[in-house]
This record gives sequence, structure tokens and C-alpha cells, in this order.
Amino acid sequence: MQTITLAHGAGGSKSRQLIEEVFLPRFTNIELLKLSDGAFLPLDSGPHVFTTDTHVIEPIFFSGGDIGKLAVCGTVNDLVVCGARPLWMSCGFILEEGFNISELERIADSMASAADAADVKIVTGDTKVVGPGQADKVYINTSALGQVIAGYQTKILQAADKLIVTGPVGQHGSAVFNDREKLLDNSNLISDCASLDWMLPIIDRFADSIKIMRDPTRGGLAVILNELIVGSSCGVEVIENALPVTAATQSLCELVGFDPFYLPCEGRAVIITAADGAEDLLAALRSCAAGRESAVIGSLLADARNRVSVATTLGGSRILPATAEFMLPRIC
Amino acid sequence: MQTITLAHGAGGSKSRQLIEEVFLPRFTNIELLKLSDGAFLPLDSGPHVFTTDTHVIEPIFFSGGDIGKLAVCGTVNDLVVCGARPLWMSCGFILEEGFNISELERIADSMASAADAADVKIVTGDTKVVGPGQADKVYINTSALGQVIAGYQTKILQAADKLIVTGPVGQHGSAVFNDREKLLDNSNLISDCASLDWMLPIIDRFADSIKIMRDPTRGGLAVILNELIVGSSCGVEVIENALPVTAATQSLCELVGFDPFYLPCEGRAVIITAADGAEDLLAALRSCAAGRESAVIGSLLADARNRVSVATTLGGSRILPATAEFMLPRIC
Repeated sequence: MQTITLAHGAGGSKSRQLIEEVFLPRFTNIELLKLSDGAFLPLDSGPHVFTTDTHVIEPIFFSGGDIGKLAVCGTVNDLVVCGARPLWMSCGFILEEGFNISELERIADSMASAADAADVKIVTGDTKVVGPGQADKVYINTSALGQVIAGYQTKILQAADKLIVTGPVGQHGSAVFNDREKLLDNSNLISDCASLDWMLPIIDRFADSIKIMRDPTRGGLAVILNELIVGSSCGVEVIENALPVTAATQSLCELVGFDPFYLPCEGRAVIITAADGAEDLLAALRSCAAGRESAVIGSLLADARNRVSVATTLGGSRILPATAEFMLPRIC
Repeated sequence: MQTITLAHGAGGSKSRQLIEEVFLPRFTNIELLKLSDGAFLPLDSGPHVFTTDTHVIEPIFFSGGDIGKLAVCGTVNDLVVCGARPLWMSCGFILEEGFNISELERIADSMASAADAADVKIVTGDTKVVGPGQADKVYINTSALGQVIAGYQTKILQAADKLIVTGPVGQHGSAVFNDREKLLDNSNLISDCASLDWMLPIIDRFADSIKIMRDPTRGGLAVILNELIVGSSCGVEVIENALPVTAATQSLCELVGFDPFYLPCEGRAVIITAADGAEDLLAALRSCAAGRESAVIGSLLADARNRVSVATTLGGSRILPATAEFMLPRIC
């Protein structure tokens, strides 16, 4: 009998397999089949996006955030990368018996701050309590509804389209891993956990040239790029030395053998945009404090096999498979 | 330091306290402050309702249903009792490492059947995996959006309003308790777990006379009635021998000392309606197979103290407090 493994929750090929073999055959509808970060709802008042995410991160308080901030920002970001302005959010808590209410209060404070900052309202909620050993402290589901920015829609990818990332990658994965394993003291490993709502005016302005966006969470940039180009006629070539990575993340990767391409982010977006206008979009992103380290990191090329490759600093090329299972359980 | 107890998840006064002391002061907005089963969203295309519920029931397969059916029906019912037609649903799974995929498939089958039956689409989802002992098999969050039936809104409660319940109460609580404790073999204790979407045409027809509806889940009829009349100028008097209770539920209650007023339902609605037209509404409910055991079980009376009382079969009267903590953890 097949059983669930941690890889089924890692965001890579096993997660995909679970979705394709268990859920898709049963929950068939066109909204779900798009397998986007959210579902597009054709409301009379214009297209909206509906999204859900359950947060089980460990530890619940980490460098740069906590499970409350993550729960709000993670779901806000799923809406933003669908081109939608977050409006309303629900939260569902699972609490372990014995959990400190003072910690729950800190988490609720973080959620309130993050929701205020992103201008989303937490309008409905639910709380369940389970016994000791039936959860690990607290899990939080957030679901949300947003309205798609007028004129924005995903577009067909083409060779020469540009690939932009809005800041250094892998900070969330490296910070949480370091908090857990206590490898480096006083490090600069701080999660990038943050809301991407600052991008909304830019998405509005560049709605005609932005083709698709995603936030590279579980599986990191490598897995998300593979997902983005499936079904297109393109591959992606990333220029390794164009990729923004902090020195702290780079050090940790060298220490433990991680590949920053597979490390999750929680406050970055990947944007594929028409080549024409890419420089203006980059300038607009960099003019915002939260996007000042945005960079064009590569481009699309004609490739029916949809490969994601890296032009390495040393002049070589390597493929980034979607199948790599980078095992950081409970990272979000 | 205060810690979370099972009572915080039981739906009674401790749950209320957690919401009022931890969440409401932080997530302040008019939609949330209504503390309804869902939040009313003022979309341009008309009022919608947004709701969320996390399901942690144990056992995951029970007489009359499973966690998948419950997760869909529970959230559908929260929309229906807000007067909304369910449209779109999200699902977020937390899976324990080692959980059987064949059981997950059975659960997904149940979700698909229940969603089809209630004409709601599961359009987006999320799956997380945690280690052994960090969850108990599977937990499911469902959130959903529905459109309010034109013309329906909650109304001010008045003395002489009638109280209707759409079928026998307490079947879910008694069936799951019996499955767990294995008290009675071959009993007729079967959960009432079902969707209330059959009520939608009736809500449409009686939109002018229905004042408010709720589904009596955690805390049962007693806790829900107390919640419904808070803030009104009324009390509720329930006629004990008008209350539909199956012989099987009654037997279990007598065996273990449960009070059917506090046993959760998962397929019943409580309706407060204007006295004028109550008989027509009752007839309409009884004309549906799912509502054929509907009954008028009492009425409202002027009472500034908002008491819920029962006129007992023996001619006495007893108060049903909201403070009673009926401890059936993980019942939904």
C-alpha cells in the first residue's frame, strides 16, 4: 500500500503526482485544471482570484517572521502573482492542546500587522483544538479572494521573453533551516517573508507586457520555472551570475551543500515579461524599496522540451530538473 | 501562563472567549464583528458570503460519512444558513507522513460526490505533509464563496417568531461518539452529515419571512440558540416534546447521560421565522425528502435577558446555558 511521504509535501514532482493522480481526476473543473496559484472566478463584477494555503512551518517563530506573518503574506502573494489585489481573507487555526495563549497572541498580532500592511481584511475564521501529539503547536490555513487588476491576464510565452526576479532568492529556506539546525550564530540569515502587494501598482502599469508571475516558494526557483514553462514552446536559460543571492545564503549553501535554485522564498516574485519594455519594468521594480534588488536573470528560448538550464559562472551549462526533491519539510 | 485546552475548540463559552480576547481585538472590521457563520462581502455583483472551516474529526470514517463528506457539507451548510448559494470551494489538506494514499483517495471521492451533489466547484487547493505525531492522519480546511439569494437578509427578532429545526437533532454527535467508544453494536446511530443545499429554493421562496438561520454544529442546538438571540430583546422557549430526536440518539443519551440539546448536528438547520407564514414554510420543508422531519419546536418571547428555556415534557421549565461545555473533542 502506498503511503504519504514528506516528499508529497515538498512541492516537487511527488507533490505534482499526488495532485495529478488523487485530486485532479476527482475534482475536475476548468478553474482547477489551470493549476495556478489561485483559481480565476468569473464574477459579474469582473475576474477575481480565490486561493488557499495551509501553513505548518517549524519553528513557528523564525528569523524574519513567524507563522502568522507567513500565513498572511503567503496567501497575499498567491493573489498578487495572479495579478489580483487582495480584498478578503479567512483564517482557520488548528491548535494543539497546551499551546501557550501568549504565543497565539503574538501570532495574531503578526497576522493583523501583515493584513493591515497589505490592505486585506481578515473577515471570517475558525478554530479547532486537537490533543497533544495530534498537531505541532499551531497550523494556520488562510484563504483569500482578490480582484484581478483591470487588463491583466496571462499571455503566451515566447522565445526572447525576459525573466525577472524581484530580489535575492533562497533567504526563507536558508534562514529557517539555520534556525532549526542552529548552524550559524549571529548570521545574516533572515527570511525574505514579506507581502508582494507593493507590486500591484507596477502590475497595473505593465499589465500589457507582463506575461506570467509566480512566487517561488516550495521547490524554489528551479521547480517554479519548470512549472511555468510546461505547455509552452519554450525553455528558460538563467544566467547564474545574474541571480541575486545574499552572501549569507551563499555561505550556508556552501556549508551544507544546498543549491540556491531550490531554496524557497516567501517574499519574491518571478516575472516573465515581453522583452520589449523589460528594462522599464525592471526600473519600476527597482524604484521600490522592496524591489531594489530586482534583476533580469535570464530569458526564454525556443525549446519544445521545456528545459530549465543555467549558464554557469564557469561558462558551462546545467539543467535544473523539476524532479529534484529538496527535502525541507515544514518550510511553509 | 494560560494554555489552550480542548474546551477552546468545543464551540461554547471558552471558544467564544478565545475569539473575543485574542482574535477580535486584532482583526477588527465590520464583516468579522458580525461573527456569523460566514462574512458578507459587498461585491459589485451583489452580496456574497465567504466562509472557512477546518475539519479534524476522529475517526475519519464514521457511520454516515467521512472527513471528506463532512468537509464539503460543513462549509456548504455555513453558506446556506447565511442565505447563500455555494459557488466555489478551496481545500487545504494536512497529511501525516505514513497516511495511506488509498484512504486519501476514498476521502477525495467523498469530497467530489458531496461537491457535485451540492453543485459547488472545488477550484483551488493546497497539500502539506507533516511528520508522524504532528497530525492525526488527515485534517482538511475548506473555504468557500457563495452568492446571497436575492432579497434574503437577516431580520430583527421579535416575540412570537417561530423556531423550526429541519430534522432530528444530535445524530452526528451520538453516531461519532458511538463509533469512537464502540458502546452499541449494530445501532441505528448514523450521522446526519449532509448538505443543506436542498433548502435553497425554499429560502428563495420564503426570503421575506425567514429571519435568521444557523446550523447547530459544535455545542448543538443549545449553544446556537443562545448565540442567535444575543443582542435581541427576546428569549427562546423550546417545547421539549416537539423536538425531533431519533430513538437511537435518545437511547445513547440515556445510556451515557448526554443531553440531546448539546449534541452536534452536521445536516440540520435551525430557522427563526416570522409567525405569519411559519406553517407554510414548515410545509415546504416537509415536502422535501431531506426535510420531511422538520418541526416547529418553539417560539421567541420577550426577554431582555436572552434566556433559552425548555418547557419540559413533565410540565417544568429548565434553562439551557451557553456556558455548558459539552466535551466531544474533534467532532467536526
